[in-house]
Amino acid sequence: MKVNGEQIQSIWYELETDEVCIIDQARLPYDFEILSLQSLTDACRAISSMEVRGAPLIGVTAAYGVYLALREDSSSLDWAIKSLSETRPTAVNLRWSLQRMKESLEGIEPSALAGKSLETAQLLEKEDIAVCEAIGDNGLGILEALWTQKSESQKRLNILTHCNAGALATVDWGTALSVIYKANNAGIPLHVWVDETRPRNQGASLTCWELSQEGIANTLIVDNAGGHLMQSGQVDLCIVGSDRTTILGDVCNKIGTYLKALAARDNAIPFYVALPISSIDFTIEDGLRDIPIEERDSKEVSEITGPDSDGIMRTIRVASQGTAISNPGFDVTPAKLITAIITERGIHEATKASLERLL
Amino acid sequence: MKVNGEQIQSIWYELETDEVCIIDQARLPYDFEILSLQSLTDACRAISSMEVRGAPLIGVTAAYGVYLALREDSSSLDWAIKSLSETRPTAVNLRWSLQRMKESLEGIEPSALAGKSLETAQLLEKEDIAVCEAIGDNGLGILEALWTQKSESQKRLNILTHCNAGALATVDWGTALSVIYKANNAGIPLHVWVDETRPRNQGASLTCWELSQEGIANTLIVDNAGGHLMQSGQVDLCIVGSDRTTILGDVCNKIGTYLKALAARDNAIPFYVALPISSIDFTIEDGLRDIPIEERDSKEVSEITGPDSDGIMRTIRVASQGTAISNPGFDVTPAKLITAIITERGIHEATKASLERLL
Repeated sequence: MKVNGEQIQSIWYELETDEVCIIDQARLPYDFEILSLQSLTDACRAISSMEVRGAPLIGVTAAYGVYLALREDSSSLDWAIKSLSETRPTAVNLRWSLQRMKESLEGIEPSALAGKSLETAQLLEKEDIAVCEAIGDNGLGILEALWTQKSESQKRLNILTHCNAGALATVDWGTALSVIYKANNAGIPLHVWVDETRPRNQGASLTCWELSQEGIANTLIVDNAGGHLMQSGQVDLCIVGSDRTTILGDVCNKIGTYLKALAARDNAIPFYVALPISSIDFTIEDGLRDIPIEERDSKEVSEITGPDSDGIMRTIRVASQGTAISNPGFDVTPAKLITAIITERGIHEATKASLERLL
Repeated sequence: MKVNGEQIQSIWYELETDEVCIIDQARLPYDFEILSLQSLTDACRAISSMEVRGAPLIGVTAAYGVYLALREDSSSLDWAIKSLSETRPTAVNLRWSLQRMKESLEGIEPSALAGKSLETAQLLEKEDIAVCEAIGDNGLGILEALWTQKSESQKRLNILTHCNAGALATVDWGTALSVIYKANNAGIPLHVWVDETRPRNQGASLTCWELSQEGIANTLIVDNAGGHLMQSGQVDLCIVGSDRTTILGDVCNKIGTYLKALAARDNAIPFYVALPISSIDFTIEDGLRDIPIEERDSKEVSEITGPDSDGIMRTIRVASQGTAISNPGFDVTPAKLITAIITERGIHEATKASLERLL
């Protein structure tokens, strides 16, 4: 992705200093800072406090977390995997990534564990970039076709997205936004409606920032506004990411995704989900029944942090003290509402028949 | 409504001091303050800056605004009506109320205009209270029936509401919340899911406060969460208010209402709209085509005000400076998604055949 005109990734390994570097997403969009992860504790904190977030990026961060643990103590593999897998309960490719690490380290001598784990983490990093870029390439045709249909009646293609499924949610390129970047690179005139995505406002903080860095027109809206925009003909398609997808094609993504999918169906607007195959959980069918939904800290709802008019970061309350709060982090969009799923292998119907071919 | 255990209205006329008093809703829930309106300018500001809000309360405030104008200058009727009608474009009973004032003042001697306008404004105030209480009485049966069905399997009836359609949106009782207050008074155990209702957070600021003052259990959620709660069986019914309703039964209400109605239909959950007949616009049919949607100040989205940890009110930004923002204030929920409309006259299908009987 571009930041201030330069290419950068959300996470990378710095060979000279033997450290793992991340963009501190908790400080965006107001400060652009690079954080150094030096230990398993750092990696766990980065995931659980959402300095890194997004299913694919969490997976790669966890992989590097295993390396950071083994670098300190070659007997810490089981502990590292346990600690890292408990940082976020919903993301399936966190566990997928840790499983990949575990398999690659089987039968390795203690003295070689750290080296091998670094090698595997770097491989996962490179794979994630390739997967995300392929998602963008595969989705591009969808946007080209829609633009061919629409270009006579309007001057740009209007896309609605929820949360951040961009380069910042992955190592680079993103999932939903990878499709948008590829379309932008292909010269299709685009405009993106960005749901602010309460409670943590990843849309307002990350997606607007990321799109603006790439020079793509975008407009921030509250999460409530998308239905009205779809009713009034201002949205041509929706693209979102996924934290976990079932074999039936049910998609578990950031809370509120389901509401946008309902509005898209009601207005005959295509609703696409872009995701890496690693986020498909082939062991579960019914997303509503089988996916536990993370209940997150109520302070995410009751408090907001941002700069005041002097630029000083302040945390304020937006609800009275003592207000009861519920804060489910995700919802499940049933397969019936999804036009198609875009992966690194192609475009798939959200059906078991289609998705089990990816096993 | 109760505030700190005492009965109070959202607006009233204080005879001794010849002033119109309102609860300053812009300061809730952190400060409970009474404001005095002394002039047409005060009344216009109170409406446009949302010190008062809610279609019925806006109507009564506008009526008192006419009095405050005529008290100063008996030739100011036309100017007062024009100024007041321009404060909020969507609310139909703002114009209905001003029309009532105008009719009641026809043929009145200039010297008697102020007195007559005060009398009419007080009549509208009393009517609003009676209308809202009747809405609650009429809706009570719906909740009793649902509770009879549900009481064997659960310990309370779970209701989801959006924005604030409570006593604070009217003179007293409210519309959607009037039904809830009547059910609570009738001994039905209730719990209310309150959408925070971005961008102005009337749910978090007003509805939670109002329900808590009445001792009714409530839980604040972000606007994104309602779909998940409905999918997971945690919502028995939805009740919302309406700013403007067409003869076909399309309901224009706070932005985001439509998304909740879609989720309710998808999960076979009843979706009720409680409204005074004065908010029905019998001259229009298709809400999507005929109702102009107010585009509000982008600062409502980009800035939030609340107390910091020392209790000092701060305004912070939640988006980068320069972010493009769109802020539609309302959306239209099509009649097909509405189980029934509750008015002061009874319970009605959201159809032309049913609603035109109210003309």
